[in-house]
Amino acid sequence: MKRKIYLNMQPLAEANSCFTQQFSQYSANNETIASHGASGRVTAKPVTARLSSPSFHGAAMDGIAVRAADSFGASDESPVTLDITSGQAVFINTGHPLPDGYDAVIMIEHVLLANDETTGIIRAPVYPWQNVRKVGEDIVATELLFPSNHLITPPDVAALLTAGCPEVEVWKRPRITIIPTGSELVDLRKCSVIAPGKTIESNSAVLAALARNAGADVSVTPIIKDDYATIKKHLKQAVASDADVVVINAGSSAGSADYTVQIIGELGQVLVHGVTIMPGKPTILGKIDNKPVIGSPGYPVSAIISFEQFVVPLLKKMQELEQPLPITARAVLGRDIPSRGGIEEFRRMISGRIGDHLVTVPLKKGAGAITTLTRANSILRIPASSEGETRGSDVQLELLRPRKQIENTILCTGSHDLCLDIIHDYLKKSSPYPMASTHVGSLGGILAVRDEMTHIAGSHLLDPESGDYNTSYVRHYLEDKDIALITLVHRQQGFMVQPGNPLRIKSIKDLARDDITFINRQAGSGTRVLLDHELRKAGLEADAVSGYNLEEYTHMAVAVSVLAGKTDAGLGILAAARALSLDFVPVTEERYDLIIPRDFLDLPSIQQVLSIISSDEFKKTVEAMGGYSTRETGNQIL
Amino acid sequence: MKRKIYLNMQPLAEANSCFTQQFSQYSANNETIASHGASGRVTAKPVTARLSSPSFHGAAMDGIAVRAADSFGASDESPVTLDITSGQAVFINTGHPLPDGYDAVIMIEHVLLANDETTGIIRAPVYPWQNVRKVGEDIVATELLFPSNHLITPPDVAALLTAGCPEVEVWKRPRITIIPTGSELVDLRKCSVIAPGKTIESNSAVLAALARNAGADVSVTPIIKDDYATIKKHLKQAVASDADVVVINAGSSAGSADYTVQIIGELGQVLVHGVTIMPGKPTILGKIDNKPVIGSPGYPVSAIISFEQFVVPLLKKMQELEQPLPITARAVLGRDIPSRGGIEEFRRMISGRIGDHLVTVPLKKGAGAITTLTRANSILRIPASSEGETRGSDVQLELLRPRKQIENTILCTGSHDLCLDIIHDYLKKSSPYPMASTHVGSLGGILAVRDEMTHIAGSHLLDPESGDYNTSYVRHYLEDKDIALITLVHRQQGFMVQPGNPLRIKSIKDLARDDITFINRQAGSGTRVLLDHELRKAGLEADAVSGYNLEEYTHMAVAVSVLAGKTDAGLGILAAARALSLDFVPVTEERYDLIIPRDFLDLPSIQQVLSIISSDEFKKTVEAMGGYSTRETGNQIL
Repeated sequence: MKRKIYLNMQPLAEANSCFTQQFSQYSANNETIASHGASGRVTAKPVTARLSSPSFHGAAMDGIAVRAADSFGASDESPVTLDITSGQAVFINTGHPLPDGYDAVIMIEHVLLANDETTGIIRAPVYPWQNVRKVGEDIVATELLFPSNHLITPPDVAALLTAGCPEVEVWKRPRITIIPTGSELVDLRKCSVIAPGKTIESNSAVLAALARNAGADVSVTPIIKDDYATIKKHLKQAVASDADVVVINAGSSAGSADYTVQIIGELGQVLVHGVTIMPGKPTILGKIDNKPVIGSPGYPVSAIISFEQFVVPLLKKMQELEQPLPITARAVLGRDIPSRGGIEEFRRMISGRIGDHLVTVPLKKGAGAITTLTRANSILRIPASSEGETRGSDVQLELLRPRKQIENTILCTGSHDLCLDIIHDYLKKSSPYPMASTHVGSLGGILAVRDEMTHIAGSHLLDPESGDYNTSYVRHYLEDKDIALITLVHRQQGFMVQPGNPLRIKSIKDLARDDITFINRQAGSGTRVLLDHELRKAGLEADAVSGYNLEEYTHMAVAVSVLAGKTDAGLGILAAARALSLDFVPVTEERYDLIIPRDFLDLPSIQQVLSIISSDEFKKTVEAMGGYSTRETGNQIL
Repeated sequence: MKRKIYLNMQPLAEANSCFTQQFSQYSANNETIASHGASGRVTAKPVTARLSSPSFHGAAMDGIAVRAADSFGASDESPVTLDITSGQAVFINTGHPLPDGYDAVIMIEHVLLANDETTGIIRAPVYPWQNVRKVGEDIVATELLFPSNHLITPPDVAALLTAGCPEVEVWKRPRITIIPTGSELVDLRKCSVIAPGKTIESNSAVLAALARNAGADVSVTPIIKDDYATIKKHLKQAVASDADVVVINAGSSAGSADYTVQIIGELGQVLVHGVTIMPGKPTILGKIDNKPVIGSPGYPVSAIISFEQFVVPLLKKMQELEQPLPITARAVLGRDIPSRGGIEEFRRMISGRIGDHLVTVPLKKGAGAITTLTRANSILRIPASSEGETRGSDVQLELLRPRKQIENTILCTGSHDLCLDIIHDYLKKSSPYPMASTHVGSLGGILAVRDEMTHIAGSHLLDPESGDYNTSYVRHYLEDKDIALITLVHRQQGFMVQPGNPLRIKSIKDLARDDITFINRQAGSGTRVLLDHELRKAGLEADAVSGYNLEEYTHMAVAVSVLAGKTDAGLGILAAARALSLDFVPVTEERYDLIIPRDFLDLPSIQQVLSIISSDEFKKTVEAMGGYSTRETGNQIL
């Protein structure tokens, strides 16, 4: 088995210029298309008018056509009567040709017509050619309508037609062929059940959508096996076809079945193997028979970022479509982001407006985590020369959504609960305020409120002394702030256990058993506090619980640990157990509140949230999930 | 013949809210579509994950799968040897499932393999689950993937597929039927010659393109005659069809053949007739059988602005697509713009950056002038409460192009010459700098330079004293400024006359003939100065020339005047005569220069212009047009 390593990796700018240089003159050629359908295309040649517009002298108003001389002298004192019967004036509608011999139009509103419309009285003169659109007033035959490389807009279509150009020569849409490879991949459209160990192929659909957005015609081949000869055969076929660009995904890293770089090298030339960006590092840029061939990374986030950096600009350049610059904005960074030097990092962020400035927090890393791309509303690029950014610093973001939408975003940081998703859905249905949640545990949320990095913090922190939730924490950590505390729900916490509860776990006391490994939540989480409280009530020490020191950060991660058989039980909510078909052993009920700085209560966005949680519809939806009670939902505790 | 007047006209905001209220809940319903093609669509319901991702524990790296415990204690001092033959470690590629019994992956780069790959030596331990992507790490089954009304992006498609959702429920694309009406209209696709008095129908193609950009399915009917019964029949049919929205164009004003408002009123209800916006006033907003029916104006600019204000927002709302806010910018206004009070005016503008701020100048008015829309890069809205804006004031623009492109725009104000179009074409071919010209005559250009409203002024002003061009004017009007004067071309000026020159006009002296009516250019234009000079040389008084006081503003307008038979001769350039197939009688040759503030010479955009005009290719293209000499092109006079 041969193992490969990356050829000398290149920085983004160098890789880009190396690739661009090879294909700077590369295009998919011209084609002549009907002007009717030309909006969005780019002219390949200058376009000149064939006809003038107007092509005749026409009425610019509804009214009567006259000889201007006949109107001279008309005034309030001495009105002039025009004889319509004899043809001294004729009715004319806007846009219609001026009959021969007439040289002006009088607006119908300025004519006092006899009842039988045989005459019309006017009280002001018109000058020659008044209210007449003259030949060529808008477009003159032979004049330049559009230069080369002009993006045709909808109004431009009217200009083309009006100028007598039924067709226009434009750059062809480039054809791109995308070849998904991987023996572990299956096509979701072709299988109702995903066999164990198989992965649903999704990259080709994303890359296809990105390519279509870049104006390309896309063809996606069936999934190809990780087999040297098969891949080589299909890549050869694709290059020999009418495709202008070929993308093979994946097989671009240095694994044993990653044949792509070898095959591109054999069939043509590898220009770049490995780019110092993250995600996106294992990108191959190559050339076969003078066609660009790209080996794109297998992880979805890597595949997308690599495609956006290298393939989209190429596709746009081939049609002379302008690549819009990213919209940028300054924001205050909510958390430290360490970064490896020597690598340019593209970090997905959630941003929103607090007071008069934007704030931004990172989503987790991970080239495999597609949800970091679907949830992010902005990107932070950390240059290769930097070792990261520190909390509180002023950073430049690239915005993935319109700025207004980002400014409207309700930031919700802290403990996660499914009811927040329901609020998010209701907000999207009835307001311009999206909600973006980051899950950092209850205490993390309270600290985000303290640091003015969030609008709302979800929290379920028990005070073991008082038996109350959240209030003592708010008083302790947020004593300088004026805070509202509003109950969202009560929810059951219990043990998530293997289906059928084979170990017959019934109460907190079972955690001390030798045959049971527990999975804990991180310190600072409400569930951890709750566990400690329950252990104390039951007279158990932490030491007695095997697995007390194993930590996960979310209910779902705890459920996954149990499902995978790594551990036997974890404390969490009913919904998490249900999500993975685990059994649930209720332990206690807790209160989950929203912590909101009182200043924010008057924001229209927060008003919307409060009105949603007070609605019967919301409460009904929550109760229907099971494990929740809305008996105190909306109550303001502080 | 019945004449109609507008029902009470409504301001834009009121008309909009009246219309929106009627159709705020109006949608084209849901449909289920394949997730593969769902990018760009909007979810009609919340989407939850069906499967977790990853669906198994998989390798996050290429390497060897191990039991973490086997690696404990490994260090540089005491490396650990793992036996691959016996299965203590197994090779694994990124994304592949971890075989049963293994719980960590060691990166291949950290393993020293024996040549026969039977063993691997490691010098550092791994902890359990290191380099493993665990079940549900990215997506957990049952979690909310997207709320309702979520615009699906390309990465969202990956999330849908990965979460096991082969289909997704989205809002249907609304269907819109567009009915072009007008007995004078012809379809350019169906006729090679346009009969006199006929007009090429172009509105339906523009409105269709705008509707498609708004995500609608569009159908355009054949052109309908201006006939009450025919229009009524087709409108009834369209409303009875599966169309969600019907647009009838035109017949919305108050002309005699404008049946639309009457027919909408008979078949349903007219909500609004007439909106106090310009262009766009004669808009009808109605409702038939609970479907929105819009009577849109006939003039192209009116039709487009009315459609953008009323129909596009409706189409987007029906699919819950967000309507992006216009990008705005402040700019200094270059000219007075008077406006009628009581009407909100949408004025098309050309804007660019001079120094550190944007400047903007209006294009001509006129609802019929489609080229004002194709040339504009920005819009100035003058509210109904205003009577206009004054030169030098700071105004707010809505940008029609990306801000960067507007900032890159080379402003060229002054006399027009076809060579400027060639420069524009060359710029578009090879640079990011578009050129926008406004034609205000040579002196207008010089004043624009004085007022710092342009980068370049084209000028051909003869100094009769010295016989030289432009220099004395630059010294006089721009004495405080450091100006470069660069020759663009020499060009022939001559008389444009009827084809065949029936009046046998041969020289300047013929203008004194009684049977000849001349058409002049405006005062301040280079051609006017030239004419006066030639008259003086010939010993003629202005009074002797019939038509001396008739003025037009461009070469083309002069040519049109001659072509239309209104006048017999005008002074202009060969290209203008050729454009309208007029005969041309050469009179003299003149120099046409570019006036450029010396500060601007170093701008990359101006550098590009200078490099173009110095190129042999440019000179060849210019000479090929006829009537031009490039013998001094590029010479710097000042």
